[in-house]
Amino acid sequence: MQWKWIVLGLLLWLTALPAAGAPVSDETYECLDCHAAIQPGLVADWRNSRHAAVTPFEAMQKNPLSRRMSNDSVPETSLNVAVGCAECHLRRPEAHADTFEHNGYAVHTVVSPADCAACHRTEVEQYSRSLMSHARGNLIGNPLFTDLERTISGAMTPADPRHDFKAPDEETRAETCFYCHGTRLRATGTVIRDTDLAGELEFPVIDGWPNQGVGRINLDGSQGACTPCHTRHAFSVETARKPYTCKECHIGPDVPVYKVYAASKHGNLFESTKADWHFDRMPWTVGRDFTAPTCAACHISLLATPDEDVIVPRSHQMNDRLPWRLFGLIYAHPYPSHPDTSRIRNSQGAPLPTDFDGNPAAPYLIDAAEQEKRTNAFKSICLTCHATGWTNAFWKRFENAIETTNAATLTATRILSDMWSAGCVDTGSRFDEMPEKWWQDIWLFYANTARFAAAMGGGGDYGVFANGRYQLNRRLVELEHLRRRCRGTDGSP
Amino acid sequence: MQWKWIVLGLLLWLTALPAAGAPVSDETYECLDCHAAIQPGLVADWRNSRHAAVTPFEAMQKNPLSRRMSNDSVPETSLNVAVGCAECHLRRPEAHADTFEHNGYAVHTVVSPADCAACHRTEVEQYSRSLMSHARGNLIGNPLFTDLERTISGAMTPADPRHDFKAPDEETRAETCFYCHGTRLRATGTVIRDTDLAGELEFPVIDGWPNQGVGRINLDGSQGACTPCHTRHAFSVETARKPYTCKECHIGPDVPVYKVYAASKHGNLFESTKADWHFDRMPWTVGRDFTAPTCAACHISLLATPDEDVIVPRSHQMNDRLPWRLFGLIYAHPYPSHPDTSRIRNSQGAPLPTDFDGNPAAPYLIDAAEQEKRTNAFKSICLTCHATGWTNAFWKRFENAIETTNAATLTATRILSDMWSAGCVDTGSRFDEMPEKWWQDIWLFYANTARFAAAMGGGGDYGVFANGRYQLNRRLVELEHLRRRCRGTDGSP
Amino acid sequence: MQWKWIVLGLLLWLTALPAAGAPVSDETYECLDCHAAIQPGLVADWRNSRHAAVTPFEAMQKNPLSRRMSNDSVPETSLNVAVGCAECHLRRPEAHADTFEHNGYAVHTVVSPADCAACHRTEVEQYSRSLMSHARGNLIGNPLFTDLERTISGAMTPADPRHDFKAPDEETRAETCFYCHGTRLRATGTVIRDTDLAGELEFPVIDGWPNQGVGRINLDGSQGACTPCHTRHAFSVETARKPYTCKECHIGPDVPVYKVYAASKHGNLFESTKADWHFDRMPWTVGRDFTAPTCAACHISLLATPDEDVIVPRSHQMNDRLPWRLFGLIYAHPYPSHPDTSRIRNSQGAPLPTDFDGNPAAPYLIDAAEQEKRTNAFKSICLTCHATGWTNAFWKRFENAIETTNAATLTATRILSDMWSAGCVDTGSRFDEMPEKWWQDIWLFYANTARFAAAMGGGGDYGVFANGRYQLNRRLVELEHLRRRCRGTDGSP
Repeated sequence: MQWKWIVLGLLLWLTALPAAGAPVSDETYECLDCHAAIQPGLVADWRNSRHAAVTPFEAMQKNPLSRRMSNDSVPETSLNVAVGCAECHLRRPEAHADTFEHNGYAVHTVVSPADCAACHRTEVEQYSRSLMSHARGNLIGNPLFTDLERTISGAMTPADPRHDFKAPDEETRAETCFYCHGTRLRATGTVIRDTDLAGELEFPVIDGWPNQGVGRINLDGSQGACTPCHTRHAFSVETARKPYTCKECHIGPDVPVYKVYAASKHGNLFESTKADWHFDRMPWTVGRDFTAPTCAACHISLLATPDEDVIVPRSHQMNDRLPWRLFGLIYAHPYPSHPDTSRIRNSQGAPLPTDFDGNPAAPYLIDAAEQEKRTNAFKSICLTCHATGWTNAFWKRFENAIETTNAATLTATRILSDMWSAGCVDTGSRFDEMPEKWWQDIWLFYANTARFAAAMGGGGDYGVFANGRYQLNRRLVELEHLRRRCRGTDGSP
Repeated sequence: MQWKWIVLGLLLWLTALPAAGAPVSDETYECLDCHAAIQPGLVADWRNSRHAAVTPFEAMQKNPLSRRMSNDSVPETSLNVAVGCAECHLRRPEAHADTFEHNGYAVHTVVSPADCAACHRTEVEQYSRSLMSHARGNLIGNPLFTDLERTISGAMTPADPRHDFKAPDEETRAETCFYCHGTRLRATGTVIRDTDLAGELEFPVIDGWPNQGVGRINLDGSQGACTPCHTRHAFSVETARKPYTCKECHIGPDVPVYKVYAASKHGNLFESTKADWHFDRMPWTVGRDFTAPTCAACHISLLATPDEDVIVPRSHQMNDRLPWRLFGLIYAHPYPSHPDTSRIRNSQGAPLPTDFDGNPAAPYLIDAAEQEKRTNAFKSICLTCHATGWTNAFWKRFENAIETTNAATLTATRILSDMWSAGCVDTGSRFDEMPEKWWQDIWLFYANTARFAAAMGGGGDYGVFANGRYQLNRRLVELEHLRRRCRGTDGSP
Repeated sequence: MQWKWIVLGLLLWLTALPAAGAPVSDETYECLDCHAAIQPGLVADWRNSRHAAVTPFEAMQKNPLSRRMSNDSVPETSLNVAVGCAECHLRRPEAHADTFEHNGYAVHTVVSPADCAACHRTEVEQYSRSLMSHARGNLIGNPLFTDLERTISGAMTPADPRHDFKAPDEETRAETCFYCHGTRLRATGTVIRDTDLAGELEFPVIDGWPNQGVGRINLDGSQGACTPCHTRHAFSVETARKPYTCKECHIGPDVPVYKVYAASKHGNLFESTKADWHFDRMPWTVGRDFTAPTCAACHISLLATPDEDVIVPRSHQMNDRLPWRLFGLIYAHPYPSHPDTSRIRNSQGAPLPTDFDGNPAAPYLIDAAEQEKRTNAFKSICLTCHATGWTNAFWKRFENAIETTNAATLTATRILSDMWSAGCVDTGSRFDEMPEKWWQDIWLFYANTARFAAAMGGGGDYGVFANGRYQLNRRLVELEHLRRRCRGTDGSP
């Protein structure tokens, strides 16, 4: 009986064992002194984080494959302390427009990738080459997309003979497209608040805040954000490697990748066996740490074999294994060669990666050689579990799905073009009337879904009944029904 | 080698350690004697429950913050025994219309909140002030809502010149709206069944049973049910604190809060890190027991800081931190001041919380001061992890979403009103024709979804493409298309 | 301090304890020698599997209730070795059209149920009586269903006066219906590939591969596949017992059973408490190993009480507890009596299990006595947790839902029939025009969803707003709107 309690005690003690914890700087100590009481949730996340447990010096001793920190040096003062409040929120005070005096320190609220680059420069640089870091500009710098946005998030104003849409206000924009794409932050002044612990204090007022969009424009002029995936204040790679993180912006129906993944064999294995996986290891070892890919495994993480051979390197560029851009605007197409897609012009001069008939705007897209290189890089991941024959046949079907869904989009575009030509639909905006909305459904939801289902082995329902080909063909038939009615060829009385 | 097996043995023994178990009453012992064999699943749930492990006497010794039981006394006979079968199913036999003689005892099948009040009176009283406990009456006592229900769950009867809908039968009702809202239970007689263990026995027949709807009318006349959330027979607070419980009735698309939550940062953290959380602790401590809110954290649970400061008290009223009712019927509006919403009359005398143009039925809704009080109570939860600036800006966007989605509903209502006025749509029922169904989609699904996305930080897809503003505007355009066609202003041939 | 590290060390050592592992055959050893390096993920799955840990001889020593292997003998050479690569991929080389010479062995890529029957004959035989094993033929052998498939997965070809659909190509088919239903595999030749470890090698080329569809036609002529549920190469019963496996093909909206389950009380308990369940035990004991059913519990697994009484036997036939087929084609109906449903003819000679008015094709369906037998078998599972009164009332509502949703389908069919009769809709194909698509929505999505919600206690949203009766009645009203417009009875100008 006694033994039982001794062992039970030991167990409890061991499981309750706190992370050893690195020493904190004096500045961070002072921050924690108040904020641990004011914001216990936030501080607890940090306390349980690797940033609180390991110093940059210790992080740099790891062997190359196990390194989480890419820089080889950090400022002397940060070298042997935990990466705490001060190490991030006091960095480069002169660079941040929201820097304010707070308890004797020059603090800024919004930490940017340029701050994170103090330790993670390689990742920040890679990320700057991803489309995600340009997500705001790629939308707001493209007149066609902002017109589409207006008809989605703006207020409809009925009027005869034609309704219209007002541009959405900034509060709405921050909650809709730019929730994920990222707001532009602007320090617009200060406000004085009465605080529990320190009486009246002055704080900056920041337009566009809060926001964790991937292409946020920060107050030091940098663009992008690390926190959408490496959630504050744990910044946990475990969380980033789980598909729930990607789900925040990719539940669909425009990019339904989380849903497709969750219904795939890979998603089944993740949910069924994840309790036995190790999401925190570096490198991430196939067969030992995990036995089916998550989003991160295919698109970002450094993967290795149990023999420590590198399968693919870490990539925060995220598209260097992507030969195709599946998110059809309006057709799927070879991946853009530059992350700033607002520069793209198709052969008609419109800011689209393809013509209206699907012909790619080749000068702005990667070429066949680069596509092949990326394809092979991607397949090298598949091949750690699947045979070459399997992998190649899978890929062939996937590219067939690109072709057939692009063809369906072309069919829809031709039907609508006929209505435009015939004056059935006004051409002032290409997005604001019923047939135009139905056309959008086809490429934005159904063709995309069918392609993502093909890409991620989540065929079955997402390829067919769950916003897939069933709905695509239904919409085509409905659109054609409208066209015939307008053209007087429907034989209706 | 030997050591290994000793420690392994100890571990197995410890993990298999049964809950110590409180002594059971003689009556409960007799129940278990048969039912453990007949219904092993049900009995196992109870055996693993806190009800089986702790006596009321022990429960009352806890310090106030750790109390799970609100009463300070219980009947002497229940004081030092487990809360077993008999303690609930033999309570107040005279009060229950389904009480029947069973093996010498006066047993009732359906345990009601009034029974639970023997130990949990405070929670039962709070719950009686929630809209949930009135969910049945609020639907069935409102002629507009029952007309809506008829067109949803009833059978369509096509007929020229106008189709109609039959009222749904009671079996269908128990499976549709009243599955969640609650059935009215009625003891209608008895039946004799041949049983394996005791031969022929008589049992009550109960109309409307089974049902775990939140506003169930019980056989002792009480209304409400505890078991929708505190699932029989474990009655587990762990389960009630997980969002899967709320999902049972709130998957949407009318109130898509589970989906919105699951795609939010909070939902991501819950799914990604829940294995390290403690869902059973009392009080529920921010940063120690959990690091992101679940439904219960914001709406119900007693939350504390690690220093044992109370952040918010426990509330089974569930709406005392809710300034707004987002579920637009047909507009979002200040929260009703009384849980019986069937009393509400708008300025036109209709049983709706707003006029048809969105003007609130103010006498029946909380006033601005109460709204502010509830807002501040809610924000006190946000502030345990977020700064004041963040929290206020978030809230401002949320209230902007209420305003803009209400405006969109007004636009839809005006389009439909024009069709009603012009005789394009029959006004016998407001819910049974195509334009009316499309109008319902706008406020019941799309405006609601956009608001819940704003409320719960699940912006992105649910604010836009996933039954959000995209679909809202598409439906507006479609509705306007119908109006123009009917009004002859569509320029169609 | 020292103690802590000793115990921590012991714990780590114990948790890292590898499965002991059965001896591998010489042939398997040789396979692993290369493939462990080439495909570490695949090999790791196998190494962690029961196939790697237990020999057939050991498996046969288990008591009957705990047996996972149904055969009483296996080939001598396989008796005392792990079930490794060679034991499956070298079996019956003469039977498989994809057998190829590989490193001195006659290897086949695609392992079939006929191979698995070496140890699991009973399960293979049961499975051959399930509709799943006939899923390919039941679709492709039915001219009505292939016509439906054409309008879903084929390319629409607009043309005046009528559009049409092309039959989908084989790549598309493998990614859509036949992803789940199963492809027909065909060895069409060989290809030589340069490999890292062995230079140029010859491999078979297999049309239709990869595929894990339940009704796959294999290269030994057998039909069906075990791997859709018992995923390669772990073949884990734990995974098969979790609903994520079934979700791969049953996310809906045609058969939305995963969604319905996930929103039911059972699904809530699974998600909330699964960490404490034992998914690997044989038999699967109610109340000890799990406390709410998963898909497998009701449809497949051998369930026992804690006293080792069998509640229901294992059934890979999967339908011997199913009195009804809910998946309405086009009406729900008594379960087919033979798994090959392409034989069915209704009274009009069409390959449908009911007439167009819902009258069952009785000679091809089970009779009332068999329905009752299956109903009672099913209820015996419910009764392990629920009382008889509860269970019977639940079942009555469920059968009422079958009746009312069939009636709604009849209403829809009559509306459409009137349009067919009046020439509003062409009758060349029954599936390719707008009113026909809307009619499909009614029976394929909405009536099905309402029935599955009734069957699985996931009422509430899936019975009403989530593709349930709300959408069903909305579509009925829309369809009737079309009929009236065509018939000129809509009073429109």
